Amino acid sequence: MRGKNLAQVKAMTFDVFGTVVDWRSSIAREIQNVGKTKGFDLDWNSFADEWRSGYAPSMNKVRAGELPWTKIDNLHRMILDELLSKHKISNLSEEETDGLNRAWHRLDPWPDSVEGLTLLKKDYIISSLSNGNVSLLVNMAKYGGLPWDTVLSAEIAKHYKPDPESYLSTSEYLGLPINQVMMVAAHKNDLKAAKSTGMITGYVPRPKEHGENTIVDYAEEEYVDIIADDFIDLSKKMSAIKEV
Amino acid sequence: MRGKNLAQVKAMTFDVFGTVVDWRSSIAREIQNVGKTKGFDLDWNSFADEWRSGYAPSMNKVRAGELPWTKIDNLHRMILDELLSKHKISNLSEEETDGLNRAWHRLDPWPDSVEGLTLLKKDYIISSLSNGNVSLLVNMAKYGGLPWDTVLSAEIAKHYKPDPESYLSTSEYLGLPINQVMMVAAHKNDLKAAKSTGMITGYVPRPKEHGENTIVDYAEEEYVDIIADDFIDLSKKMSAIKEV
Repeated sequence: MRGKNLAQVKAMTFDVFGTVVDWRSSIAREIQNVGKTKGFDLDWNSFADEWRSGYAPSMNKVRAGELPWTKIDNLHRMILDELLSKHKISNLSEEETDGLNRAWHRLDPWPDSVEGLTLLKKDYIISSLSNGNVSLLVNMAKYGGLPWDTVLSAEIAKHYKPDPESYLSTSEYLGLPINQVMMVAAHKNDLKAAKSTGMITGYVPRPKEHGENTIVDYAEEEYVDIIADDFIDLSKKMSAIKEV
Repeated sequence: MRGKNLAQVKAMTFDVFGTVVDWRSSIAREIQNVGKTKGFDLDWNSFADEWRSGYAPSMNKVRAGELPWTKIDNLHRMILDELLSKHKISNLSEEETDGLNRAWHRLDPWPDSVEGLTLLKKDYIISSLSNGNVSLLVNMAKYGGLPWDTVLSAEIAKHYKPDPESYLSTSEYLGLPINQVMMVAAHKNDLKAAKSTGMITGYVPRPKEHGENTIVDYAEEEYVDIIADDFIDLSKKMSAIKEV
């Protein structure tokens, strides 16, 4: 039954932050570069963690209707402004602050991402399905060489994950029944929500997402259809299923 | 002034039907294949022309609010059903009719399209901006090897060209001022409408779009910023402007 579900997949949509790209070390490097230039010192990894930890609460304000639709670039900026204030960094120009905020457009892919996506692209339509806005995702793809067939985003659905509308938009825009689209993510909550809308789910844990202290949950779940070590492994496992 | 406008372009969005792909001979070939199998004979090119000529009036019903939002796949199907009835072709199954309708997902690129887009992709974000729905455009890109950075569509803007909202959506989703986005099309009415929203415009006439009887309008226009023979020529001309 599960094999049959996986064999009918025509498209894969990918969570991006943490699943396709290593946001933490990329952001830490960018803030470190700014610190060197502007003469401040911080725990760069902790700054990246703080920035990221503001992300879900700010999206939840949009999801709950407390904020009107606001794209991630602007949510990132609101969090950044608070962090700079908290850390008493006041010597960045508007241009420098905006440049730092766009660090999220320049995140390094995990070592397997480009090769794995390129392999998967031969057999499937591959697209992002990220809470990142379209321009962030397009710029990131140019920066890192991510070979998307197209870019889908919460910004197009006008609903952030894990709202069901975001997952269901993949079916609408890709012109496929929802059970022919696989959501691929490193985060179980993303997959659980995807599964509740009828998607097939692929779990690719990323044991370095939060640095050395990352705790990976390898427990099996009803809502996870396939688990893989990375995108190359996912490609191999999906090819094996096709050949059955 | 015009050179300066062109030098600030960061992204190019392309009309697709006629500009990137040769819809007429592709559709004629597909209907001919169906005719051979199902035992009917027609003027295949005329059938393609009839099908295409139903396109603007049906979109205009959506634009005028006479029809709710309806994607091109469904508009194409409405026109096809009328044409099959008109030509007294009644022996196609639902699956066969649907397969023929999807001929619009399998249109051949013009000979220069893939090479030209690949060259332009090195220096610009390249995207469709078509009235075709997203799945049509994604499937067509897979079929023809069109190397889009992303797929933008009237379906995302929920407004058909030449409504201004469709052009303005490129600025919103690509995160660029509208005067840093160039609309590329083989049709002057598309460029005139794009220019009225503030876009830069590139005219690439396609002298075979309507077969041997195509009449190309080479007159200069205020609203056309650059004219090129094909996408390779457009790439060369834009490179020359960058180097000034």
